[in-house]
Amino acid sequence: MSKRVRIGLLGAGRIGRLHGENLAHAVPEAELYAVADPYLNDEGRAWAKEMGIEKAYTDPEEIFNDKSIDAVFICSSTNTHADFIIRAAAAGKHIFCEKPIDTNLAKIQEALDAVEKAGVKLQVGFVRRFDHNHKAVRDTVASGQLGKPHVVKVTSRDPDHQPMEYIKVSGGIFMDMTIHDFDMVRYLAGSEVTEVMAYGAALSGAGYDRLGDIDTAIVTMKFENGALGVIDNSRAAHYGYDQRTEVHCDKGCVQVANDLNNTAMISSGDGVTVAKPTWFFLERYNNAFIAEAKAFAEAVLNDTETPVGGIDGLQPVRIAMAADQSLKEGRPVKLSEIG
Amino acid sequence: MSKRVRIGLLGAGRIGRLHGENLAHAVPEAELYAVADPYLNDEGRAWAKEMGIEKAYTDPEEIFNDKSIDAVFICSSTNTHADFIIRAAAAGKHIFCEKPIDTNLAKIQEALDAVEKAGVKLQVGFVRRFDHNHKAVRDTVASGQLGKPHVVKVTSRDPDHQPMEYIKVSGGIFMDMTIHDFDMVRYLAGSEVTEVMAYGAALSGAGYDRLGDIDTAIVTMKFENGALGVIDNSRAAHYGYDQRTEVHCDKGCVQVANDLNNTAMISSGDGVTVAKPTWFFLERYNNAFIAEAKAFAEAVLNDTETPVGGIDGLQPVRIAMAADQSLKEGRPVKLSEIG
Amino acid sequence: MSKRVRIGLLGAGRIGRLHGENLAHAVPEAELYAVADPYLNDEGRAWAKEMGIEKAYTDPEEIFNDKSIDAVFICSSTNTHADFIIRAAAAGKHIFCEKPIDTNLAKIQEALDAVEKAGVKLQVGFVRRFDHNHKAVRDTVASGQLGKPHVVKVTSRDPDHQPMEYIKVSGGIFMDMTIHDFDMVRYLAGSEVTEVMAYGAALSGAGYDRLGDIDTAIVTMKFENGALGVIDNSRAAHYGYDQRTEVHCDKGCVQVANDLNNTAMISSGDGVTVAKPTWFFLERYNNAFIAEAKAFAEAVLNDTETPVGGIDGLQPVRIAMAADQSLKEGRPVKLSEIG
Amino acid sequence: MSKRVRIGLLGAGRIGRLHGENLAHAVPEAELYAVADPYLNDEGRAWAKEMGIEKAYTDPEEIFNDKSIDAVFICSSTNTHADFIIRAAAAGKHIFCEKPIDTNLAKIQEALDAVEKAGVKLQVGFVRRFDHNHKAVRDTVASGQLGKPHVVKVTSRDPDHQPMEYIKVSGGIFMDMTIHDFDMVRYLAGSEVTEVMAYGAALSGAGYDRLGDIDTAIVTMKFENGALGVIDNSRAAHYGYDQRTEVHCDKGCVQVANDLNNTAMISSGDGVTVAKPTWFFLERYNNAFIAEAKAFAEAVLNDTETPVGGIDGLQPVRIAMAADQSLKEGRPVKLSEIG
Repeated sequence: MSKRVRIGLLGAGRIGRLHGENLAHAVPEAELYAVADPYLNDEGRAWAKEMGIEKAYTDPEEIFNDKSIDAVFICSSTNTHADFIIRAAAAGKHIFCEKPIDTNLAKIQEALDAVEKAGVKLQVGFVRRFDHNHKAVRDTVASGQLGKPHVVKVTSRDPDHQPMEYIKVSGGIFMDMTIHDFDMVRYLAGSEVTEVMAYGAALSGAGYDRLGDIDTAIVTMKFENGALGVIDNSRAAHYGYDQRTEVHCDKGCVQVANDLNNTAMISSGDGVTVAKPTWFFLERYNNAFIAEAKAFAEAVLNDTETPVGGIDGLQPVRIAMAADQSLKEGRPVKLSEIG
Repeated sequence: MSKRVRIGLLGAGRIGRLHGENLAHAVPEAELYAVADPYLNDEGRAWAKEMGIEKAYTDPEEIFNDKSIDAVFICSSTNTHADFIIRAAAAGKHIFCEKPIDTNLAKIQEALDAVEKAGVKLQVGFVRRFDHNHKAVRDTVASGQLGKPHVVKVTSRDPDHQPMEYIKVSGGIFMDMTIHDFDMVRYLAGSEVTEVMAYGAALSGAGYDRLGDIDTAIVTMKFENGALGVIDNSRAAHYGYDQRTEVHCDKGCVQVANDLNNTAMISSGDGVTVAKPTWFFLERYNNAFIAEAKAFAEAVLNDTETPVGGIDGLQPVRIAMAADQSLKEGRPVKLSEIG
Repeated sequence: MSKRVRIGLLGAGRIGRLHGENLAHAVPEAELYAVADPYLNDEGRAWAKEMGIEKAYTDPEEIFNDKSIDAVFICSSTNTHADFIIRAAAAGKHIFCEKPIDTNLAKIQEALDAVEKAGVKLQVGFVRRFDHNHKAVRDTVASGQLGKPHVVKVTSRDPDHQPMEYIKVSGGIFMDMTIHDFDMVRYLAGSEVTEVMAYGAALSGAGYDRLGDIDTAIVTMKFENGALGVIDNSRAAHYGYDQRTEVHCDKGCVQVANDLNNTAMISSGDGVTVAKPTWFFLERYNNAFIAEAKAFAEAVLNDTETPVGGIDGLQPVRIAMAADQSLKEGRPVKLSEIG
Repeated sequence: MSKRVRIGLLGAGRIGRLHGENLAHAVPEAELYAVADPYLNDEGRAWAKEMGIEKAYTDPEEIFNDKSIDAVFICSSTNTHADFIIRAAAAGKHIFCEKPIDTNLAKIQEALDAVEKAGVKLQVGFVRRFDHNHKAVRDTVASGQLGKPHVVKVTSRDPDHQPMEYIKVSGGIFMDMTIHDFDMVRYLAGSEVTEVMAYGAALSGAGYDRLGDIDTAIVTMKFENGALGVIDNSRAAHYGYDQRTEVHCDKGCVQVANDLNNTAMISSGDGVTVAKPTWFFLERYNNAFIAEAKAFAEAVLNDTETPVGGIDGLQPVRIAMAADQSLKEGRPVKLSEIG
């Protein structure tokens, strides 16, 4: 392989372009060489040209069949992820795949088996692990300087409602939104979840209950290493993207606050105001998206393990299923009951 | 009644003297007139003299029988609280009682019935309601400016282990420590708890498990008004008294951080350090103790309701029992199952 | 001398009562025994009684002549300070004197000479040295952990205008208000000021210029140890009492923020608000007043040096005079030009 | 002109490449078309190719003579700035020029005259105006919501010493480093400086005094609108890049803190640590560099005024000269004495 990882991008929608722009401009270890999207139109081709992409296709097979391509970024719709993984693995290409791999455990397992058999690398797009704040929490816990973890806390609140059309097909809050937090607690605790208990409600008045969904959740959990955890979610915080994590250990704790739009404080007789948190993931996790792409490219170049592997694609889905079941049945659910 | 509430103090131990000093020096609406403690010795009498207390007894009956005394502060050991309430009520005296009233529901109810029958005022010592920070959270929620509450979060971690002799007779973490937080969530949510789910573990290595107790807990709950809640506890945070509350509502959230020893930030090539949180309740809730005594005196003087009444003495005990049962049985427990 | 310092209070106005209440209730090392105030009326006598003061006079000589009194607190009007110091010293009493000793250097020197001759202790009321925040700055600098000081910065802004009648007789901003900051920079730098340059203006529109005074000032200075300093002042910050200090040293810096009314942060779509700084000196320096009285009592009891001595009463007055001259003449003024 | 501004880059050193990478990747309104640098070698040509630059020259005349080029970025050594401005203006090209234009007032004026005569646009590289924090201060002041400015404060401290070879030819702290702050105070106050007083010292022990220079400075100033200002500088803060600004106005103040590496707080029995400020200008002003290039491109495309014009290139140099003279002569210097 050359000094740069030659990459084929599968999917040129919002998240595909986000990765594409990072690969083109901010990841010197990668060469964004091709893109394939069945809906690629003139505007999409113009974007590809601006990114310096040499090949633009509507058929992904063109990418799988191009022997010069080292790796793919799977940024297509969720229902294609597992098949694209299997196809890419068969073609001997390393794989970066947006989360989730699938919402069906058997399908995920099939994809992971294909990856293992082919001996290619797989990285799943849990981008928050690459955020400067959460990473500082993880690094502090993993360093052992505070001893063993006792309690892992994640606050994760979206700034505002997604369209109800999106919610309808989202798979529910746990599979769509909390899945990031299920990955995060595993990452921070350095241990697997063994049991979850979910409380949830539709409190916003936006109509989640009419879809059999909720907009507010608190999920508690046990970890294999004895630690306990809690996640709280909202679909609409209104003040911005509330993304805080906190781990309490033997000797103390580490916690992170939100990134703010700026550090300004305005004080007058009327009161004191400070800036809001950054609005949503594009603002908050901008640098994290670059870092995850860079980490993938480096793992390929140096032939090392990717930082977010197949098991990390599987476990959050299982936890989401357990949380779903817990909410429905009003009882704690063990992970061993799932899959 | 005169302009000042004449008070008899029952119990001159640590918490009794704390209240005594506040009543003597910091609550102009009160006159600390008498103290009774069966163990009162010369040192105790010297303390009483320094406080300007006119009468110092070993027999509490002296206080109950003194018609010039308007109210009592019950600061004796927990097992005497209910009986002293009943006795004080019978004597027509208003009552401030340290928490908990009792750990037996029937006994609590008996005391509350006595209070109601006598028509005297009762205030229970849930001091944290008077803390400037938690009160700011409550006031913001109660003002309605953020709409209805969705999620109530309480972080409550003691700085360090109590002696194991104390733990042994403490009644367990929920009855001894979380009881304050059970009061707090009711106060912040403005609603009653209907169900709790408790996770807990003995992680500190200090031996709580050998006493059938835990040192780490996460308790989630539902409220009557539809909101959800979560409390996390530790017996030994090590960095200080971690006392934070946070309420998320329709339109946004209100949260408070810890009080720190000072605002100093020291920056050098080695890193940046800031001050620790205040160490424990004497430092953190110092002004809150004064405010609660003042509030009681004012309720008596103005013949208004006390801010923390009989129901507030009862409910946290019921929630603690439910949490205990939840932990033991590994399932959510409804408050309707208790008492 | 007994275990407690028996104190006579001279002056029962606002600042006298502040000290009186602290001495009576919060300084166990002191016994507030007598008060003298030429304007003492029934209300004042009632206050004295409430404080447990045994003797209440209109004539200060009663205090000077009472051999049982160990020390005096001079809280009368500024023009009486020096004479009371001289009289107290002659009577062999230790002296706590509110700032400033006088605005006339010769008079100050006369008072200091009397103190020295009598061998009594003198403490001047620069209360900010006892504030938890500024003290943390000083302690960090004095510890040497950051090396030698390079730059000392003081932000000192009153919340709102004093009555113009007060301003008229205040002696000007430098003698009335900045004098505290002149003490502070000496305290933080651990070195004497050698030169000052003052810029000032009347910007508030409240009419300071009509009195030949200013409401806004920036004073820069050099210290004997080579460090530089800057103070900025305003008579009316409007958002509260802005009292921040900051010292930059060889290896880094230490800085303190304001104390806030509480730690609440309220976040919504409309923005994020936090609490205001505490309003004025009664709120901000409440504990510092207690600490300075305690420090005085301890110095007397232990026969050690007071923490704020005669030189500390003299130098800020000299610096204020230099700043005044600098402002008028539009040039830096050396301290050696003063007195 | 096309939809994008075609740009020729003059100078491919550190700052040239910084601008080049931003123009290539982060400013869609610009097309980085050519680069010229007399020292351009193979490595530089490779860099140019990677940036997608079509023309790479050693002779800047190639750029001036290319009629297809709309604008130049002057990122060469300071002594070439004025001549390149004159040459670019003559060629009818719009000009972005790194600060300072020159250190000689006549030369600056000559360059500004050439710009005016040619009717081209000029933007000077005072990048800090585009920082999210300082811009928030400016926007708050400029909005008038706090009334008129009274006091402008700038803390500006570099993280560590530059090489002494650099210092030797830097023109001194005021011309090299404080010049950014002189621009900042004008920007924040919305008014011109009329007088400055400088205090300075060589306190670090690194040898600035042997070069006739200083490493520590406090500069105070008056503005035309009556406001006062103060800047403090250090060549070596050690804890990072300390870049804070603060403006006090009629009704209150606005202030900004440093950006930190992350928001982590680690609390244990040993103390509480938080993250350091970002290290230096590449970290802190990364987005500001992009924003200034974008603002220039937009001003060209929309034919509007550039946000930092010729006068902004001139005035900070005059203030630096006045500060220099003040320091040398130990007296305040009026700007009217300069040039």
